[in-house]
Amino acid sequence: MGAMRLGTFADASGRGFAGLVTDAETVVEVGASTRELLADWDRVLPTLDAMSEAEGVPLDDLTVLPPVEPGQILQSGANYRTHVIDLAAAHHAERGNRPDAELRAEVAGMMDRRAAEGTPYLFIGLPSAVTGPSDDVVIPPWTQKFDWELELAAVIGREAFRVDRSRALDHVAAYTIANDLTARDQVFRRDMPEIGTDWFRAKNGPGFTPLGPWLVPARDVDPSDLRLRLELNGEVMQDETTKDMLFDVAALVAAASEITPLRPGDLVLTGSPAGNGMALGRLLRAGDVMTGSITGLGTQTTRVVAP
Amino acid sequence: MGAMRLGTFADASGRGFAGLVTDAETVVEVGASTRELLADWDRVLPTLDAMSEAEGVPLDDLTVLPPVEPGQILQSGANYRTHVIDLAAAHHAERGNRPDAELRAEVAGMMDRRAAEGTPYLFIGLPSAVTGPSDDVVIPPWTQKFDWELELAAVIGREAFRVDRSRALDHVAAYTIANDLTARDQVFRRDMPEIGTDWFRAKNGPGFTPLGPWLVPARDVDPSDLRLRLELNGEVMQDETTKDMLFDVAALVAAASEITPLRPGDLVLTGSPAGNGMALGRLLRAGDVMTGSITGLGTQTTRVVAP
Repeated sequence: MGAMRLGTFADASGRGFAGLVTDAETVVEVGASTRELLADWDRVLPTLDAMSEAEGVPLDDLTVLPPVEPGQILQSGANYRTHVIDLAAAHHAERGNRPDAELRAEVAGMMDRRAAEGTPYLFIGLPSAVTGPSDDVVIPPWTQKFDWELELAAVIGREAFRVDRSRALDHVAAYTIANDLTARDQVFRRDMPEIGTDWFRAKNGPGFTPLGPWLVPARDVDPSDLRLRLELNGEVMQDETTKDMLFDVAALVAAASEITPLRPGDLVLTGSPAGNGMALGRLLRAGDVMTGSITGLGTQTTRVVAP
Repeated sequence: MGAMRLGTFADASGRGFAGLVTDAETVVEVGASTRELLADWDRVLPTLDAMSEAEGVPLDDLTVLPPVEPGQILQSGANYRTHVIDLAAAHHAERGNRPDAELRAEVAGMMDRRAAEGTPYLFIGLPSAVTGPSDDVVIPPWTQKFDWELELAAVIGREAFRVDRSRALDHVAAYTIANDLTARDQVFRRDMPEIGTDWFRAKNGPGFTPLGPWLVPARDVDPSDLRLRLELNGEVMQDETTKDMLFDVAALVAAASEITPLRPGDLVLTGSPAGNGMALGRLLRAGDVMTGSITGLGTQTTRVVAP
């Protein structure tokens, strides 16, 4: 039997419901939303296990919706070593004021210091940017540099407030896939150098966060070595493991929980690995199709549509 | 008859409900949440008008809760001229590397250029940071520089997506008061100079956003010249009008709506005027009491409690 897959679906009439995907690729309806299930996860899991052999409707007859309606989204910035070094090099190359090797060495040194002494950097994402794992995404008219960022998303079960890193994973109920679509030309406010980043504009347009296809229980996932792989029109762009994270999932959850109570269904996005369009010089265009997958968590497919 | 005041209250048994505050300082219960009312504001307002003479329970017997449960919060940063100049001067004074007058002139020049050519700067706030207008707020253990920022909050009624500045106020149903409490020592990530600001940590602890006391319909408010006044233990710290805003309410709502659809109950916080503790050299301590008021919108009172 494969790992449990819990999702949210709509039938042909448009009715939405949470359900369990069986090994036979059918969906067995469960009688509550995934967020409600996450709130009582320890008690719910054995019940879901017992349902996994039940009769269901064919998955192919359903639309897959985002697997959870998140209350809060905390996103990790600059959390994969190679990603940070590549992006810094790409941004500086535009301005042409530093030798590439010198810049890369400096950023790598900063990364080492941050991993040793620093704290994770988190910013807030809007739940309204979440869309389903096979929905199209429209390029907004206000960006010329639309890019992908495939990320592991940790889904909170048990409430977490000021939890220690050593206990933080006890509060993660499940994992899923997020694509943190980013308008690169909106990330930095060049006119406000002290302010720096503008995550609201860069990250939160409609459909900027394809999520899913499903929740896989944390008991079935080792987050320390998962492979993230994003293909653009069949060509591999991102292919990296979570080993390249500066701060691991536990550190990110602990850091988020230091500030705000994390509740069932909240998401902690763990940052993008290297291989973004900005670094590769190939940004998203209408007609592009992204296929994002993470070991054991399934695949999401997002078509990019003209403004 | 005074302007309409619509709030959310709890009675002695803890039951919460939305209600109208009458001129006799009683509260008349209305049969829906304020967020539901905002969603149908044009039809609701005449009904509420007709209820304003009804019998109610004494306001003094009730606890005043946040007047709305916001779905999304967009916050304006660096939006009052004097505030930005003062804070820049205060931050630079800590590092002692620039003559004060030179720095102030440079920042003022940047403000002029931004007002003429720039776009508002917005960041996301967590609804979980909202607390009632007379609740105590606990200083979190992770800040040594806890500060106030009294702000005018615009409350969305009619959905707003990519609305023009000239039509933006049509989508604002009401106004209220927010105190955007800020951990000043968390605003800038000195170890990540490109990233700049860390709004999640600086602005989103529990209770960081005292909201209310009530919603006042936009028809009864001219947002272009309201006086914001914050007293600390009876001493006036902030006393400024919304005329000092760099971008007005319409510009902020339009800018937020360019990125994401604003929905009934969403808040646009319009930034803090000058007179913050950081600039005055007097930050919050346990036992302090803040009293914040805005012309026509009432008063909120927040006591600061030790960690």
